[in-house]
Amino acid sequence: VKLSRLGEFGIIERIKNVLASQSSDVQISIGDDAAVFKTHSEYWTVITTDALVEGVHFDLSYTPVESLGWKLMAVNISDIAAMGGIPRTAVVSLALTENWTLKQIDLLYQGIAACCKQYNCDLIGGDTVRSNYSTFLSATITGEVEPECCAKRSGAKTGDLVCITGVLGRVMVGFRILSLSLNKKGRQKAVNHFLHPEPRVQEARILVKEVGINAMIDISDGLASEIEHICISSGKGCTIYGDKIPVAEDLKELSHSTNKPSFFEAIQSGEEYELLFTISEDNYQILKKKSIFKNGLISVIGTITDEAEGLNLFYNSKKISLPTQGWDHFKNNQ
Amino acid sequence: VKLSRLGEFGIIERIKNVLASQSSDVQISIGDDAAVFKTHSEYWTVITTDALVEGVHFDLSYTPVESLGWKLMAVNISDIAAMGGIPRTAVVSLALTENWTLKQIDLLYQGIAACCKQYNCDLIGGDTVRSNYSTFLSATITGEVEPECCAKRSGAKTGDLVCITGVLGRVMVGFRILSLSLNKKGRQKAVNHFLHPEPRVQEARILVKEVGINAMIDISDGLASEIEHICISSGKGCTIYGDKIPVAEDLKELSHSTNKPSFFEAIQSGEEYELLFTISEDNYQILKKKSIFKNGLISVIGTITDEAEGLNLFYNSKKISLPTQGWDHFKNNQ
Repeated sequence: VKLSRLGEFGIIERIKNVLASQSSDVQISIGDDAAVFKTHSEYWTVITTDALVEGVHFDLSYTPVESLGWKLMAVNISDIAAMGGIPRTAVVSLALTENWTLKQIDLLYQGIAACCKQYNCDLIGGDTVRSNYSTFLSATITGEVEPECCAKRSGAKTGDLVCITGVLGRVMVGFRILSLSLNKKGRQKAVNHFLHPEPRVQEARILVKEVGINAMIDISDGLASEIEHICISSGKGCTIYGDKIPVAEDLKELSHSTNKPSFFEAIQSGEEYELLFTISEDNYQILKKKSIFKNGLISVIGTITDEAEGLNLFYNSKKISLPTQGWDHFKNNQ
Repeated sequence: VKLSRLGEFGIIERIKNVLASQSSDVQISIGDDAAVFKTHSEYWTVITTDALVEGVHFDLSYTPVESLGWKLMAVNISDIAAMGGIPRTAVVSLALTENWTLKQIDLLYQGIAACCKQYNCDLIGGDTVRSNYSTFLSATITGEVEPECCAKRSGAKTGDLVCITGVLGRVMVGFRILSLSLNKKGRQKAVNHFLHPEPRVQEARILVKEVGINAMIDISDGLASEIEHICISSGKGCTIYGDKIPVAEDLKELSHSTNKPSFFEAIQSGEEYELLFTISEDNYQILKKKSIFKNGLISVIGTITDEAEGLNLFYNSKKISLPTQGWDHFKNNQ
């Protein structure tokens, strides 16, 4: 069955069936003019929106549609996490070409629903429309955060340690394996990381609520760019030690560059879903004692300096300039 | 200057400049991972999202981009109004082709900002990405509503009067004048209605707060379909008197149909931004005394009946079937 035969109201009926049970704060869900939910008065509301465009952000020839639905949610949930927030509700806007089959639409929504379920986010509304040329997916997620836990980009202080979660470049490895049809053997983890990225909501919550950090951002545009964002927003400089940045091991063998270490690709790799944050020395001691961070999840990669010091990157004991131009959707740089 | 030369961060800087001053409830706006705002604990949050796709919902050859920005907001604000809500915040997701000029992007955002300003809605975030084939615009609006004022589709009661605001078919007239390049002389009102539709937020607020209604919906898919939505959601039937439905006078001369009265086009015309609601006889007496409704803005077009009576439409004293298939984005029916 093609989308064109089902019609919009038929889709709404199907979506209703895919939806998991919703939290009791949801008053009105899909099927009215708008969705309605109760907010908790002690929290602030966090809201973010991100779009995925066919041919720019995804390629249906090697991305399963279920994974696409997951990623649409994950990219937005990661932004909520970066503010220190808890995801609450999601609405999606899908513009699908007439080639989409009912089965594919179901799988897309299953991916959306699975990610929402994992992060306790209620899918409460949306709009499904026709597109003539290519597929567009957009989602908006609301979350909530205690005012004192809200993590801005602009809070970095001189002397802060600069930290990241996880390993960089895994998304890029997964992307190359799938897009170049490489052998997946032994690389399933990287493929999974590309297809089902897991935003660091839990880690972020512990950082803002139990540890205390000064600035945070998620790695959407590449680590180098995100460091620049934090420094500019905070009116600070930084010194980053490139050798301390953990890089996915198999990125090296899949590197596109022959004359530069894979490290440079890793720090420009976007949509890595890891967190970059700055934290005082004192609070870093608290962080180290948290069991969730005892497995080497956090790497200290540098320090925040006064603005006059500028942005400094050292690699193999040499000072090099920070390649801050990460992934830009309007430049063909991937 | 083309979009491809400016880059995403350049766009964000420009958007910041276009933004009007924001309410004090906005804590963090464009330029962080997500936007943050305070909600009022006595209200519920209303959220809606709607997308506009080039070639499906709009044609840039006759739609000024400033009007496009306005409409993107208006279609969503109308959904908030239909719930009885007050618009609060907006986020937009724009996928633009490389052909967009900076001037056009500024005008698009000026239209977005102008509509937000008129309805006291804070534009607090968004995502601007590249599209290879066509333009895709999506917006999400949050609003707030007192729990006792929230207007569902499902509240219609037997004996309720069925009412609509305004005159139907004006959007269709404006659309035909522009799309067929007809003479605008004497028809500027219809053209304005198409380019700068004004959702009925104020009227809806008075209806839910000072009058009291039982069910409400905005006319997105055509009056006939909306009546069906209310009746199905409420488990009711209805009797509609077609002769009582006000139809735009110039629709008749622009009619595409030669053998059917323009009335039939009017009740299938979508995106009319008018409200359809059901109200008890008693509350209708209260409504009549409100000054805002004294200018003939409200028409009583029928009554709600028990479900077993079905959906009945009378026109020129003849019973005819309700043409409930309005505008469906997946069927080429406009």
